[in-house]
Amino acid sequence: MKVEIISIGDELLIGQVINTNASWMAQELNLSGFEVSHISIISDKKEEILESLRYAENRNDIILITGGLGPTRDDVTKHSLCEYFDTTLIFNEESYKNIERLFATRGYVISEINRQQAELPANCKALLNSQGTAPGMLFERNGKVFIAMPGVPFEMKMLMTIHVIPELISRFNAPSIVHRTINTTGIGESALAEEIKEWELSLPEYIKLAYLPSPGMVRLRLSGIGENQLSLVNEISLLENKLQKIIPQYIFGYDSETIEEVLGKALCDNDLTICTAESCTGGYIAHRITSVSGSSRYFKGSVIAYSNDIKTNILKIPNKTIEKHGAVSREVVTLMAENIRKLMKCNISVAVSGIAGPEGGTPDKPVGTVWIAISTENETQAFQFVFGDNRERNIIRTGAAAMHLVLKEINKIK
Amino acid sequence: MKVEIISIGDELLIGQVINTNASWMAQELNLSGFEVSHISIISDKKEEILESLRYAENRNDIILITGGLGPTRDDVTKHSLCEYFDTTLIFNEESYKNIERLFATRGYVISEINRQQAELPANCKALLNSQGTAPGMLFERNGKVFIAMPGVPFEMKMLMTIHVIPELISRFNAPSIVHRTINTTGIGESALAEEIKEWELSLPEYIKLAYLPSPGMVRLRLSGIGENQLSLVNEISLLENKLQKIIPQYIFGYDSETIEEVLGKALCDNDLTICTAESCTGGYIAHRITSVSGSSRYFKGSVIAYSNDIKTNILKIPNKTIEKHGAVSREVVTLMAENIRKLMKCNISVAVSGIAGPEGGTPDKPVGTVWIAISTENETQAFQFVFGDNRERNIIRTGAAAMHLVLKEINKIK
Repeated sequence: MKVEIISIGDELLIGQVINTNASWMAQELNLSGFEVSHISIISDKKEEILESLRYAENRNDIILITGGLGPTRDDVTKHSLCEYFDTTLIFNEESYKNIERLFATRGYVISEINRQQAELPANCKALLNSQGTAPGMLFERNGKVFIAMPGVPFEMKMLMTIHVIPELISRFNAPSIVHRTINTTGIGESALAEEIKEWELSLPEYIKLAYLPSPGMVRLRLSGIGENQLSLVNEISLLENKLQKIIPQYIFGYDSETIEEVLGKALCDNDLTICTAESCTGGYIAHRITSVSGSSRYFKGSVIAYSNDIKTNILKIPNKTIEKHGAVSREVVTLMAENIRKLMKCNISVAVSGIAGPEGGTPDKPVGTVWIAISTENETQAFQFVFGDNRERNIIRTGAAAMHLVLKEINKIK
Repeated sequence: MKVEIISIGDELLIGQVINTNASWMAQELNLSGFEVSHISIISDKKEEILESLRYAENRNDIILITGGLGPTRDDVTKHSLCEYFDTTLIFNEESYKNIERLFATRGYVISEINRQQAELPANCKALLNSQGTAPGMLFERNGKVFIAMPGVPFEMKMLMTIHVIPELISRFNAPSIVHRTINTTGIGESALAEEIKEWELSLPEYIKLAYLPSPGMVRLRLSGIGENQLSLVNEISLLENKLQKIIPQYIFGYDSETIEEVLGKALCDNDLTICTAESCTGGYIAHRITSVSGSSRYFKGSVIAYSNDIKTNILKIPNKTIEKHGAVSREVVTLMAENIRKLMKCNISVAVSGIAGPEGGTPDKPVGTVWIAISTENETQAFQFVFGDNRERNIIRTGAAAMHLVLKEINKIK
């Protein structure tokens, strides 16, 4: 079952937008046992679309198309598909109702352009798009499947998850593939590879390991392929247990779990509340914590003290402490954590102060120097980190390190 | 002069690595007047490489290949190119000297595998790779040019900059391409298309418009192609001025500018300081503002008041105001903005309170209801928004709306 992904869009061909859609799709398809053999990017011209469809149909079984479906007039995919499958557009009642529902929630009026989005090629099966006005369209010919989706990432992802992957699994008989991802933080890719070298060498040939690094974490994905799903699951579970014994200090979660979700669950389970005092991260840690639905159950609030004024006036750090040790110091971050915890009456608090860069470094405290403190009723501890010279990544890494420290502290409490 | 980029590599097809190489190349080629018409990702199998070369030669003039050149045994590109151009490998003295030089700097010993890297197809021109062991290879046939490069990003970038782009410019007479992107916020794609319909219809055939939507903004990209660069620049500039008159309220910046960068510049230029009081965004607005390097010049801090406790105790919102109107109300958000501005002694403040979802909605105040207030020494104004039902997007949209309101307020002040 070979898949071709065709991404349509001039913004991809001029390099303005990176084709993250295709990578995401390839990853998901792979996880479900489908092999992506070609990814093509083409412009939104009818003749290019038709040519690519011909090539793709020749060499692959499943053709997934994204982009070129939208309310504006540069939409040509739908018309090209009509021509390719020798059909015409007809009004689709169900799609129109979806547009009506979406517009009602947003309080918008449906325009003629939006009405036209409910017109679909007569011989396609519409895949309802609850997140947007353009539905997915599934065509079938000689046992091959073609599915067109909008290019907006969250709409495409929803359609892939809800409709496309389940449809493909039910139509094609893919071999058993079992994946398990172990999520680590606090260690880089190559240091991690050193630590787990023996374990990695012990993997059987049919279970593969992939390192998936991103700022602040490295995910380890085990993928097994074979006939017997149950025995694969068991084998992978044994390998996971062995790994857990080798690097317990770096593992924070599994599969699609994020560190903020794991943290939220730990806070809930232990009936604890949390708050933050942030300098260099500028609200990023609070943003990550509150990105989890239901976080109001454990997150009370934050003070972002970007200027030293706020550190003295609201967080009550004595001026002389800042003058003596600098704002990026064990002393200041410790007081920040203690004072915010008392101010917001929480069980646990985290405070950070650092130099995100690219400006502000000194020989003593280079760009990337970050102090993080964790405070509970029992104790306050501070830790120093030195990250790199990239502002964005320093903020992300500080966020991951801070949440990881809180998680470890909760594990101590319980 | 149409270009096809062929990226070779299984890591791209399983979605483990995103094809940033192709985007970078497309951008650089575009800036030099070359149009990229196809980007293909294929696996490192000989038959796939040969098939892709045939398709590419049929439809394009310049074919750039990356990947599949390296010291490991999965290197097949070189052998495929030999077959495609009907030639054999011969030892290239200059390439070998480069490998010797590189290994001497690193203190490595040259292995047989590395020696083989100096063997190149007899009819190619070698493009010296000062950064690595695999040189670029240029082939010519019937006026069409094929260039293969290694996939390692910094090696590819060096080869593109030093050899490939200058070679292409000297061989082909590229037309001028001019791009200008106008960034809007506060209006959806289809409503925007309605508002600028007349203007869009007035575009000449050689200037194209693309809508590039993402949560909280729609970017409008104009691309002109022609012989005379200066007249294209002038024409696009006139079109931009006309658009600016039609939708001044939605335009916040141009090209790669983000709204937080434009806001930061406006605050700096007017010597103003800012702070935020956030409920439903949980620090996201502060995070966006502080993602800009140098933001400590104008951003003082925030109070994130996720729980009502913090609203009363730190932001000094009377309990009875919250009880009477609810936390998501004009009254509460107005007081949040006024009080944070005074507390942090800033010229301008922004406060938000809303229901990010998916829980917490009521018939009166559905999920997505957000109040935003902007306060200055002169006045405080509050605005209500109703976004959708997706938590992540509600937070992003609220952030964009809040920063946009602040920008408008600054424009009024100055």
